[in-house]
Amino acid sequence: MNGAESLLRSLVDGGIELCMANPGTSELHFVAALDRVPGMRAVLGLQENVVTGAADGYARMTGMPAATLLHLGPGLANGLANIHNAKRAHTPMVNVIGDHATYHRHLDAPLTSDVEGVAAPFSHWVRSSKSSRSVGRDAAEAVAAARRPPGQIASLILPADASWNEPGVPVKAIPIAEATMPPDETIAAIASRLRESKSAALLMGGLALREEALDLAAAIAHATNAKLMTSTFYGRLERGGERAEIDRLPYFPEQAAQMLSGLQDLVLVHTGAPVGFFAYPDKPSILTDSATRIQTLAELEEDAEGALRALAEALGIRNVERGQHRARAPRPERPTGALNPLTVAAAIGSTLREHTIVVDEGATSGAFLLGATASGPAHDWLSLTGGAIGMGMPVATGAALACPDRRVLSAQADGSAMYTIQALWTQAREGLDVTTVLFSNRSYAILNMELERTGAAPSEQAARLFDLGRPDLDFVSLAEGMGVPGVRVENAEALTAAIDASYDEAGPRLIEVPLG
Amino acid sequence: MNGAESLLRSLVDGGIELCMANPGTSELHFVAALDRVPGMRAVLGLQENVVTGAADGYARMTGMPAATLLHLGPGLANGLANIHNAKRAHTPMVNVIGDHATYHRHLDAPLTSDVEGVAAPFSHWVRSSKSSRSVGRDAAEAVAAARRPPGQIASLILPADASWNEPGVPVKAIPIAEATMPPDETIAAIASRLRESKSAALLMGGLALREEALDLAAAIAHATNAKLMTSTFYGRLERGGERAEIDRLPYFPEQAAQMLSGLQDLVLVHTGAPVGFFAYPDKPSILTDSATRIQTLAELEEDAEGALRALAEALGIRNVERGQHRARAPRPERPTGALNPLTVAAAIGSTLREHTIVVDEGATSGAFLLGATASGPAHDWLSLTGGAIGMGMPVATGAALACPDRRVLSAQADGSAMYTIQALWTQAREGLDVTTVLFSNRSYAILNMELERTGAAPSEQAARLFDLGRPDLDFVSLAEGMGVPGVRVENAEALTAAIDASYDEAGPRLIEVPLG
Repeated sequence: MNGAESLLRSLVDGGIELCMANPGTSELHFVAALDRVPGMRAVLGLQENVVTGAADGYARMTGMPAATLLHLGPGLANGLANIHNAKRAHTPMVNVIGDHATYHRHLDAPLTSDVEGVAAPFSHWVRSSKSSRSVGRDAAEAVAAARRPPGQIASLILPADASWNEPGVPVKAIPIAEATMPPDETIAAIASRLRESKSAALLMGGLALREEALDLAAAIAHATNAKLMTSTFYGRLERGGERAEIDRLPYFPEQAAQMLSGLQDLVLVHTGAPVGFFAYPDKPSILTDSATRIQTLAELEEDAEGALRALAEALGIRNVERGQHRARAPRPERPTGALNPLTVAAAIGSTLREHTIVVDEGATSGAFLLGATASGPAHDWLSLTGGAIGMGMPVATGAALACPDRRVLSAQADGSAMYTIQALWTQAREGLDVTTVLFSNRSYAILNMELERTGAAPSEQAARLFDLGRPDLDFVSLAEGMGVPGVRVENAEALTAAIDASYDEAGPRLIEVPLG
Repeated sequence: MNGAESLLRSLVDGGIELCMANPGTSELHFVAALDRVPGMRAVLGLQENVVTGAADGYARMTGMPAATLLHLGPGLANGLANIHNAKRAHTPMVNVIGDHATYHRHLDAPLTSDVEGVAAPFSHWVRSSKSSRSVGRDAAEAVAAARRPPGQIASLILPADASWNEPGVPVKAIPIAEATMPPDETIAAIASRLRESKSAALLMGGLALREEALDLAAAIAHATNAKLMTSTFYGRLERGGERAEIDRLPYFPEQAAQMLSGLQDLVLVHTGAPVGFFAYPDKPSILTDSATRIQTLAELEEDAEGALRALAEALGIRNVERGQHRARAPRPERPTGALNPLTVAAAIGSTLREHTIVVDEGATSGAFLLGATASGPAHDWLSLTGGAIGMGMPVATGAALACPDRRVLSAQADGSAMYTIQALWTQAREGLDVTTVLFSNRSYAILNMELERTGAAPSEQAARLFDLGRPDLDFVSLAEGMGVPGVRVENAEALTAAIDASYDEAGPRLIEVPLG
């Protein structure tokens, strides 16, 4: 058995079942070994940011890492932006990056680069295998590193000779440490503050956004009269149906600061203290009042649900009932007439079906989506965690690979779509049930809004740089060029009909929604 | 004047006239300052690898750096692969990467990353500006670093507060050191070896591939009975018309080793000793015989043309005549009938017009292109220097921005096209005279060839990972989705007609050529 085969066998033993791949010559022996190792599915992405984003989406839905297969430093570089988003989503991921043979590196052939240096800024764990004999062990350690709670980025560099040489030694999965519990005195201290506080809030992120944790948090908030909110961005939120309703901390810092204003106590669960997404001249970066006392119930490495359960017990809360804190506002009616962000949100909200996975990169055009779906059937919500746009289509692809019995609704905007539009081809090849609703306002609208906020005068060059028209992008042509059936809709009735039809059919669909 | 304006004024004073941009919120003040600073043209790319590749193409044709404008670590990461190619082409480039305000970084907001760490592996020079007052000076130093012979990658990180704060202090261009001359004794020693050698070759790269240097090298080769060849990949080769003909070192190591076999002497001019692009099991990485004596006439930092002139003088060569060593093989006839790599090459060769800029990322389908164009009219040839595919469409875009009075022929393959297909939109928006001839063999053909070379058994998963069909990519749809008129041709007559028509019309065109 060569190093490549030992790598694959070690990954499979560690529970990895999917390898998103964009291989090159240095990865040939890995590719050839795929046929000899049952249990690993390899899926091609035409650009590496599709590969890494799909690995992210898959892991968000399964809780298990996918592997990626990337071609040397530049191939890794192409996938870094979605590795950044995955890191910010606390996603477990094992990147396998082919490199030159160990004895070839010093010759500085054209594709040579400092692969460890490229991986480091976006990885928790980086290693370059020394020989075929170390590859299996390195792979097992990479899986263990990726699965360290709450989830990490492990990047394993595979020199070509470590891949093709024999012997390879497959290594059994290394047991994963469970997430630890917060100290009893922390739980007691927070319980005591929540009992006394005149104005408290729980800010939730990470694994605190799954239904059991949310039920506990909602019960705690209800019993202590605390507010309950999510961080602005999160990897995955379970919502709708019987699940507890939860507000979202707004994106714009003025609105976020207003929501946090006057709090005596803020309790963090699997998230950090709220800060501005960007800094702005003469505006504070820290969004809480200086008087607010901030305490962390569960750090990211700790057990969020366990911590919430312990806190509920400390507060004397028994019987946390499913459905008690569900959203009660009526679902939106099926909209009619002109397309705008409100009618688009109503169209998605009114047609939403149970178990849909919503991937939200709708940007400004998707502002009303969360509200319009809150009272819908149970579904998952995956958001842009790291701010590197181009995450939505790949994450939708990976979520669909993870959950073949569920439909993915990919809410996407024209600007962000164009970073990773190649994901549509993988959706077509794999026959994935992804409905892309593409909001086309023909601009980087968020930048125009931000420019207005700075008070800068309207600028001719800015207008040109933030405008996506001239020429208009035709997303139906783009989708069909990659084998995805597409349709452009001109009113809300057509949009709801197109969404409904996509739920009823197998395979990917793209619906272009011209706005403004 | 704020920091951003001082940056722009310093760049313009340093001779930078083009800023390829994909900005975000942290770059707003840079964008707003564009209107206040005459002399800088800003051009939008929809994905950052388009931005950096276009900056590369522009600089290859003008000799002057373009600036890029990128959005924090992930935006830079998206453009690294074409920065890698630019670095390998010895292209001068000034990257301006927006970052969080200095006081905001430690808060670890979602888009935070180690931007210096991201830039370092692919940059010769990296700096993060400390304040608005340092920005102008940093910009001037970045331009000087980029212009250090033969050309370098300078990455300047611009914190948002350094951009928006006052005062900014524009700084005059720093004088650039000229390339140095090799020592006289090196020239004398090489002259002496070339006189005595029974079997010598000159291997040329970098700036040694411009017409004056090539005439000198051809005269030297002729006088000393030496072979003359280029490195396998190079940033820009001036060829055709009266220019001296030169062979290319083949890509596959067996063929390259054969061409280098038996040499007593190898003289390097602006390139390194030839090594395999990749290593292969049981095959040497170094392609020259161990007995071959390798000497460097001109290092990359030295003056290649000056060195060749001095060498010619040392060899007593007077009168280097233009056209004396031009290619003499007949140009190909206009081909008819079925499309295959030979007829496609003949179609491009027979229609080639004077001053065309050929960007070559045709991969396996473009194997015969160099031969079919050698006897054509004077033209430039830009190749993939760093092996990171996805360079061709962006470089073609930048070359067209650099030379609005010349047509760019972008020879592209389906696999490589899909990494940076977004470049077509910029070609449409700017009305660039780029003809993309897209070879569609529906596979990563090079990987199938490489797999065969390894002797590995045909593999089912490999077949799937290297296959670009199922579904077929429709490049006419993709082009038209981005505003570029496209046509699919089914025979050689239609291909030559479509190429001819594109030369006669303004603006971009895409011609899809189905193969095999």
